[in-house]
Amino acid sequence: MNRLLLVAALLGSAASAQTITPPAAPAPPPAPVSLPPEVARLRDAALKDDLAWDITEGLTTEVGQRLAATEAEARGRAWAVAKLRSLGFRNVRVEEFRMPVWTRGAETAEIVSPYPQKLVLTALGNSGATPAEGLAADVVVFREYNDLLAAPDGSLKGKIAYIGNAMGATQDGSSYGAFGVARRAGPALAARKGAAAVVIRSIGTDAHRNPHTGSTNWPAGTAPIPAAALSVPDAEQLERVAAKGRPVRMKLVLTPSFRGEGTSGNVIAEVPGTDPGAGVVLIGGHLDSWDLGTGAIDDASGLAITTAAAKRIMDSGRRPRRTIRVVWFGAEEVGGFGGQAYARMHGEERHAVASESDFGAGKVWRYEVNLPAGAAAVTDRLGAALAPLGIVRGTGLGGDGTDIGPMIRRGVGGVDLNQSGLSYFDTHHTPDDVLDRVDREDLRQNVAAWTAMLSVVAYAPEALGPVTPR
Amino acid sequence: MNRLLLVAALLGSAASAQTITPPAAPAPPPAPVSLPPEVARLRDAALKDDLAWDITEGLTTEVGQRLAATEAEARGRAWAVAKLRSLGFRNVRVEEFRMPVWTRGAETAEIVSPYPQKLVLTALGNSGATPAEGLAADVVVFREYNDLLAAPDGSLKGKIAYIGNAMGATQDGSSYGAFGVARRAGPALAARKGAAAVVIRSIGTDAHRNPHTGSTNWPAGTAPIPAAALSVPDAEQLERVAAKGRPVRMKLVLTPSFRGEGTSGNVIAEVPGTDPGAGVVLIGGHLDSWDLGTGAIDDASGLAITTAAAKRIMDSGRRPRRTIRVVWFGAEEVGGFGGQAYARMHGEERHAVASESDFGAGKVWRYEVNLPAGAAAVTDRLGAALAPLGIVRGTGLGGDGTDIGPMIRRGVGGVDLNQSGLSYFDTHHTPDDVLDRVDREDLRQNVAAWTAMLSVVAYAPEALGPVTPR
Repeated sequence: MNRLLLVAALLGSAASAQTITPPAAPAPPPAPVSLPPEVARLRDAALKDDLAWDITEGLTTEVGQRLAATEAEARGRAWAVAKLRSLGFRNVRVEEFRMPVWTRGAETAEIVSPYPQKLVLTALGNSGATPAEGLAADVVVFREYNDLLAAPDGSLKGKIAYIGNAMGATQDGSSYGAFGVARRAGPALAARKGAAAVVIRSIGTDAHRNPHTGSTNWPAGTAPIPAAALSVPDAEQLERVAAKGRPVRMKLVLTPSFRGEGTSGNVIAEVPGTDPGAGVVLIGGHLDSWDLGTGAIDDASGLAITTAAAKRIMDSGRRPRRTIRVVWFGAEEVGGFGGQAYARMHGEERHAVASESDFGAGKVWRYEVNLPAGAAAVTDRLGAALAPLGIVRGTGLGGDGTDIGPMIRRGVGGVDLNQSGLSYFDTHHTPDDVLDRVDREDLRQNVAAWTAMLSVVAYAPEALGPVTPR
Repeated sequence: MNRLLLVAALLGSAASAQTITPPAAPAPPPAPVSLPPEVARLRDAALKDDLAWDITEGLTTEVGQRLAATEAEARGRAWAVAKLRSLGFRNVRVEEFRMPVWTRGAETAEIVSPYPQKLVLTALGNSGATPAEGLAADVVVFREYNDLLAAPDGSLKGKIAYIGNAMGATQDGSSYGAFGVARRAGPALAARKGAAAVVIRSIGTDAHRNPHTGSTNWPAGTAPIPAAALSVPDAEQLERVAAKGRPVRMKLVLTPSFRGEGTSGNVIAEVPGTDPGAGVVLIGGHLDSWDLGTGAIDDASGLAITTAAAKRIMDSGRRPRRTIRVVWFGAEEVGGFGGQAYARMHGEERHAVASESDFGAGKVWRYEVNLPAGAAAVTDRLGAALAPLGIVRGTGLGGDGTDIGPMIRRGVGGVDLNQSGLSYFDTHHTPDDVLDRVDREDLRQNVAAWTAMLSVVAYAPEALGPVTPR
């Protein structure tokens, strides 16, 4: 509104109104959304939830780390089956699958010259190995991934490539995608240019000497080379040393190993619905974790939040229309094997929506959906159900996540309850991913959000069928 | 002042004043303190100091960790001599001394049962060793040091004693003294009660999986046993596991070793004074560090602050009355050997005051002194010189510090410039003690405070002689 219009509006002057085009009428307020009263009741009761904490504490304390396809993950599955049965879920079972196994070995690093000192690093998932006695080579420093892209083929022959590519924190976590390329693709790129090994700056936003692991990928035809992440302070130290202008030589000992095929599995539990034709509501998180911490925020909390919410629907006294299927996926971190296995086994079943919790234990701040055109009222009811928790609607398409990805790509609708990315990457994939990082009140807000979401989606009379995949 | 008096005072009523005792006259304002103008000029110029950062960055980058009596500490001495000479200090030299050497070995821990998982720990300085293949034993949990005190003699035979004794942060750092007893004396106490090994909760205030090392003491007649600190989250995990009620068995591999006698040394540099009889102003910090980090806040920053301040006096164009002696003490962490060696070599020299910076790189918030009765005016001038930096006078006696301690105990006066203890013990003695923990602006405030202090003390016409030791 310009100033003259504002004055006219304030004065209510008929004379002015005759000479100036009046402002457009404001949009009518949206029609009130009618929510069944039990939605608010269930949601608000969930703000006192203790089950999600109980699951997070129990799994991280009584099992600890749960690296995919190891005996620790198998102990995790046994723990999960016992827990889910004791909670009263139906059809609790393990669906096993086979997958390649990678495990960590020794990992040490030192600057040999010009300033001898040890550095802290950790192997990336799928890293190749140095000889047992280590590998010493000169370091070529690339402050950014793009600098490595520009390096001539063969120019890294026999060298250790260092990639900086410092990541900052973003609310929606998008910087992980943008900057994480240094981890996902950097080692293979350096290998193709002749590098003997790669060290990257951790893809993380903290300043502690706890490196961030995570998988790296080797395209067909690229043999794995040793690849590891320095903690952020160690990466900065290496950059400082290099900036002093003398050649930098490092020695790495990294002895992880590929161990052939092993067994992982998805643990599944259900709250049966009344209408088998209405499609499954698929929710969950992943049971496996990296081996450095105890996988508290990645992803015991996701299992805990989704399971606690489903338990609240189960115990509400009102059976949902749709079956709620809670999946504790196996082997997410090392390549999304659990989600792929689920889609192989259940891809032909009708699914209404899929939604996963795999972004920590911080408060939910936004929801995004991908639902059929005829289900706009469901989206509106979700908004009304979630607003009291401080959750706003985003404009993107829901359906994010490694484990639900294979189903989403088949056209299953998605509902995302987004947590903040501002501190998640301080801890992600580090030894610090332990129970201490989980805030009980934030966890309860998550359970309330998921309970509200399920109390809308699992009961919706509207059809929730296939959508255009995002 | 009570309300009636307040009313009388406000009204200025003679009638009221006749019936009520008038309030005592307010104390006269303190006489203004006359500061030479160069004090403020030098202090304020120091707020733009770059030398302290340069020293801190250089030592931690080009040398790294500097464990006492190792080749790394020797490289530190060589770096120090070159640096101090290049800065123009006089009488730069190393005063070597011999001392027992302890170095770290392997260090791993795991809970064997009931919930198998690895824990993160680090050996305490002077820890004994397990066999190379490790030591497995049941754990006895003591949540507090006092609980261990109460345990019957012999009751820990063959056990691993765990001591919690959780420390909180305090502004003045006093909780380190109070709670640190678990580290300093706990292992020996447990050994005397029969323990095979000891693990303590780190004496620290953070929540990262970086354990805090530090020395433990073995009284004559107590043979060292393996003694290590779990990181705070790992200690909490062990307590959670134990709280579930099943016996806890741990396996420890700790292979540090005592290596007989070795050489350390103090690096000394001077700004010569005009009056040899006025006594030395002894300042400094310690060159050695623990081996886990790079000793940035403990204590490269202390060396840097005191050296940068002395350099400003040296370059001021006005020679101080008293010689300023900057000492980069060796081997502080492992038993205060540098301070003891200094007192052996210089105990008979006249010292005016001693002051060390060994509490990190945070802003100075308080000063405390122990000066002769005739030097009250010096204390007042210190107050006036430091007040613009936000530094207040404390009521305790100055002269704190391991390195100056032996001189202080001989009756040398002390001036303390206290830094905050609120975050110091987040980082103290951990792998996180690296350059990242040093804030450039805080460092400059320290240099300004030390410059102001020296510009008062090193020039004071008053006698600064022996005091009653604190």
